[in-house]
Amino acid sequence: MKQPSLIPPTYDDIAAAARRLDGAAHRTPVLTSRQADAIAGAHLFFKAENFQRIGAFKFRGAFNAIAQLDASQRRAGVLAYSSGNHAQAIALAASLEGIPATIVMPEDAPTSKMEATRGYCAEIVTYDRYREDRMAVADKLAHERGLTLIPPYDHPDVIAGQGTAAKELFEEIGELDTLLVCLGGGGLTAGCALAAQALSPHCRVIAVEPEAGNDGQRSLSEGRIVHIEAPRTLADGAATTHLGDYTFPIIQRLVSEIVTVSDQALVETMRFFASRMKITVEPTGCLAAAAVLQGVVPVKGQRVGILISGGNVDMPRFAALLAGNSVEL
Amino acid sequence: MKQPSLIPPTYDDIAAAARRLDGAAHRTPVLTSRQADAIAGAHLFFKAENFQRIGAFKFRGAFNAIAQLDASQRRAGVLAYSSGNHAQAIALAASLEGIPATIVMPEDAPTSKMEATRGYCAEIVTYDRYREDRMAVADKLAHERGLTLIPPYDHPDVIAGQGTAAKELFEEIGELDTLLVCLGGGGLTAGCALAAQALSPHCRVIAVEPEAGNDGQRSLSEGRIVHIEAPRTLADGAATTHLGDYTFPIIQRLVSEIVTVSDQALVETMRFFASRMKITVEPTGCLAAAAVLQGVVPVKGQRVGILISGGNVDMPRFAALLAGNSVEL
Repeated sequence: MKQPSLIPPTYDDIAAAARRLDGAAHRTPVLTSRQADAIAGAHLFFKAENFQRIGAFKFRGAFNAIAQLDASQRRAGVLAYSSGNHAQAIALAASLEGIPATIVMPEDAPTSKMEATRGYCAEIVTYDRYREDRMAVADKLAHERGLTLIPPYDHPDVIAGQGTAAKELFEEIGELDTLLVCLGGGGLTAGCALAAQALSPHCRVIAVEPEAGNDGQRSLSEGRIVHIEAPRTLADGAATTHLGDYTFPIIQRLVSEIVTVSDQALVETMRFFASRMKITVEPTGCLAAAAVLQGVVPVKGQRVGILISGGNVDMPRFAALLAGNSVEL
Repeated sequence: MKQPSLIPPTYDDIAAAARRLDGAAHRTPVLTSRQADAIAGAHLFFKAENFQRIGAFKFRGAFNAIAQLDASQRRAGVLAYSSGNHAQAIALAASLEGIPATIVMPEDAPTSKMEATRGYCAEIVTYDRYREDRMAVADKLAHERGLTLIPPYDHPDVIAGQGTAAKELFEEIGELDTLLVCLGGGGLTAGCALAAQALSPHCRVIAVEPEAGNDGQRSLSEGRIVHIEAPRTLADGAATTHLGDYTFPIIQRLVSEIVTVSDQALVETMRFFASRMKITVEPTGCLAAAAVLQGVVPVKGQRVGILISGGNVDMPRFAALLAGNSVEL
């Protein structure tokens, strides 16, 4: 088993990340909704990271990692493998810091994501996701070109950056009874749990996974990192196969419970967001809210924080889901 | 020609309306977007009334009018004829003030709007819009039951209430070079123009109509209120047939120009809002933004205010428009 070689992040790292992000990231709004409160019978506070730069919280971790690179690393450039929000986050963060970025993406990644990534001046290297291993492709490139790999979640600087989302939430609205966060590889969950421990110590932190990919839930109950096959779920941002060596121990220590929600619940929540709260939220971004609005996690009478992780969804797909049509997973 | 019998509103009435609305209406956010700024080559400030209560600015005028009723008017109740946002606005404002509300709606009004209106405890009276005149239906009801009719736009209190949207915008971001407002019957435009005159006297106010219903544009050029047939346009909130006796003189005096945009431009703008700015905006709410983003009104280098009037659109319709499918007008 690979052992972490860097020091695990603490709340101090989140505070330092917040200083780095000041002026670079948006301080996203905290939304409330009388209708959502009525459904849940609770006071819900939605941290709207769909309004973050690149449309998702991923910018926080990416920028926090890249801002700490030394001069020679900056000259050589950075590398990421991602077909999703992490790619755009790395591309934008690198571009803001004047650093070249290379992104390894499957050749069948959504056009909109490729274009958005190219729009931030990153070089895209594609691979065949049925025949090639993206880690191998990325490692080869990193080695050949001397690039620094910024992983999507399992890195102390990435975790600390993501934690600033919850830090802002607690600073704006005070302590909470429950905080719900979507769970993929665990970067956001681990960072937010560290922030909750420091700023709202009695707050229970609950992570929410897609039903099809409950590796986190199983990992928590088995006490080890469980690996699964890539899950087929609408929540593409949480379609990870395992937690990380940095994220798992933090989650094990600070997260009370991991629950799952169905893809159907995600679609209903997405429709609620679009029609009632007037916001675009991608399926992954609906995970935490779905757990509350669909009654998976009882929160009656509580003050509840809900992380909306992002709002990047192709319009044809968004339209199909709102219309109740099935889409390809 | 019917003559106004009440005193035309002034900025003082807007300031008074703002005091009445404090705590009842939301102070909606002002959104910015680097992408929108890049398209326009300007600094755009979007006043997001889609986040207002009932999902549109109409709540402002409705509440301001209802809050000023005397005790006997309150006992008897209020009446409105509307199939759209004004109906919900009156229903909610009346309910907050503990006043009975009756809404006259065409029997084929969208189910979602009927349900939303009923949800605020209003009584709905339907009519056949192909055989009956809604004004006649409403007048008869008002007379029989002693109800006070709150018109959708042509009333000083309604105009003053709508003006608070622009007042908040100027207070938050300072003076502007141009303010764009969607134009139906002119309540929002007149109110916002009065606010602009008081708070940003050098700001040019431009009203935006749907191409299919340019009665305002024609009225301005002919110097009289031009009546047209009910226009067929996606912008249902601006599908009015004529300006009002109160709204026209204010618009004539304070609005520099009235421009039109096509339904196609509205759909493209709606898609931009959903995909890039992550917000749901109804077609009427896209009018002002479309004029800038589609280059109808040149604003290069300027500070530009854009009123987003509302976000109430049925999800099947929203989905169809985002998907590029045609919908019934």
